[in-house]
Amino acid sequence: MTKNKFLSDYKMHVNLETRWRDLDAFGHVNNAVFATYIETARGTLFKRWNLPFNGTGKSLTVASISINYHKQLKHPSKIVVGQSITRIGNTSFDIESAIFDEKNTNDPITTSKVIIVCFDFDKQKSTPVFQQIIQDFKE
Amino acid sequence: MTKNKFLSDYKMHVNLETRWRDLDAFGHVNNAVFATYIETARGTLFKRWNLPFNGTGKSLTVASISINYHKQLKHPSKIVVGQSITRIGNTSFDIESAIFDEKNTNDPITTSKVIIVCFDFDKQKSTPVFQQIIQDFKE
Amino acid sequence: MTKNKFLSDYKMHVNLETRWRDLDAFGHVNNAVFATYIETARGTLFKRWNLPFNGTGKSLTVASISINYHKQLKHPSKIVVGQSITRIGNTSFDIESAIFDEKNTNDPITTSKVIIVCFDFDKQKSTPVFQQIIQDFKE
Amino acid sequence: MTKNKFLSDYKMHVNLETRWRDLDAFGHVNNAVFATYIETARGTLFKRWNLPFNGTGKSLTVASISINYHKQLKHPSKIVVGQSITRIGNTSFDIESAIFDEKNTNDPITTSKVIIVCFDFDKQKSTPVFQQIIQDFKE
Repeated sequence: MTKNKFLSDYKMHVNLETRWRDLDAFGHVNNAVFATYIETARGTLFKRWNLPFNGTGKSLTVASISINYHKQLKHPSKIVVGQSITRIGNTSFDIESAIFDEKNTNDPITTSKVIIVCFDFDKQKSTPVFQQIIQDFKE
Repeated sequence: MTKNKFLSDYKMHVNLETRWRDLDAFGHVNNAVFATYIETARGTLFKRWNLPFNGTGKSLTVASISINYHKQLKHPSKIVVGQSITRIGNTSFDIESAIFDEKNTNDPITTSKVIIVCFDFDKQKSTPVFQQIIQDFKE
Repeated sequence: MTKNKFLSDYKMHVNLETRWRDLDAFGHVNNAVFATYIETARGTLFKRWNLPFNGTGKSLTVASISINYHKQLKHPSKIVVGQSITRIGNTSFDIESAIFDEKNTNDPITTSKVIIVCFDFDKQKSTPVFQQIIQDFKE
Repeated sequence: MTKNKFLSDYKMHVNLETRWRDLDAFGHVNNAVFATYIETARGTLFKRWNLPFNGTGKSLTVASISINYHKQLKHPSKIVVGQSITRIGNTSFDIESAIFDEKNTNDPITTSKVIIVCFDFDKQKSTPVFQQIIQDFKE
């Protein structure tokens, strides 16, 4: 994972808000919930690339996710998820992302990398990375 | 439950956004998630009334919740939760609420009533309704 | 809602376990999570009635849910959900349910009623209550 | 991450069940939910080590989590989480885990590694790995 530390290091930004239910018995946003924040932000890419988001046709599936937790997050907070495509392979690509408090976009709460596979849900097999993703990577 | 149908029937408004994870295998926002939206909106009242929201001291607990589902909700949607206090008892009070799509505030997605008990978490017993809540009800 | 107080008052029993994530910042199982327990138990009925559980064809949809909270629940707990059909209408029916700690099946943690509508998802309209449900109700 | 492929490669086993709500709009168990399964299994270690699980005193915090997704998981499924401590550092240690369908414990659905920091929540700083954990690692 690269060492991007600032929101300005990421090409795409999505703003989100915490919910009280995101907290766990420790009183902090639960670890698994960050995967949900990243997923919600990723949804904006599905839309941008015009891909179905319901388990049919040619779309995307997650091969792996890794999240580093740098700071605790409280509720209520307004957060912003930065995302960049950092690698394009034959049938897979990487999205690196970081979550910041809107008031402090120089010091991430989490940094993460998700490996995505381009997947034909009807044939249940991987498929070459879609052109619109390669295009976005080059820009 | 009263038949309030318009956002303008409710005194307090809280704006929220859906997340992709709110959907279930039917592709609609899951029934239980509406309870989470209502809870998040309710948190703004805890704040307004300056009550602890962590299971200690004098605070609030939920005695019952009922939700009527009028329409399906998709993701992504921007929603608004309307809330009003509709009854004050000795140790309990009612909050009625409705959830609307921001683009259609005359036709609720859900209407609901939550019965709240004023509760002393340290003594583990109910306690008279707090003055700031009675005040809000009267205004 | 009828005043069934014992697990033995309910015809169908489903055993479930809490998860740590079910707790909220109060350190108790969150109110909305009980709707998820009831829903998981309800899934065994969909299976028994051989209904699709994915938003297509003739299936069921929830019109309203009401839950009374009698006691707090901690993690880890083994729980059991009792369910009975208590009313059959033209296109809708009621399931009443209660959640018990496995070690105390005479004193419910929650009692609840869900109104279910028989729904044709392809035509997007309600449909008469299915024969297998009426059969179950009579038995 | 080591290439453990069999449940028998892991020292501690915890059995869990899926819930219908674990599914997302793709009709598969959602990626973030696996972090919740792993967390629930991890809770049995907190108990074994007699550590507080509420954000006070000397306890544990998660520094990073990485999950590889090998297969899709449907509901309802009975699963088993295998866990082993695979590294002990000064103030941190690693737990590797894998999730299997109970009926196929030779072919994991996910494999994962969590880096845990021994943390003094009162002082808000890391602390040497607790003796009971080192003991468990040696056994």
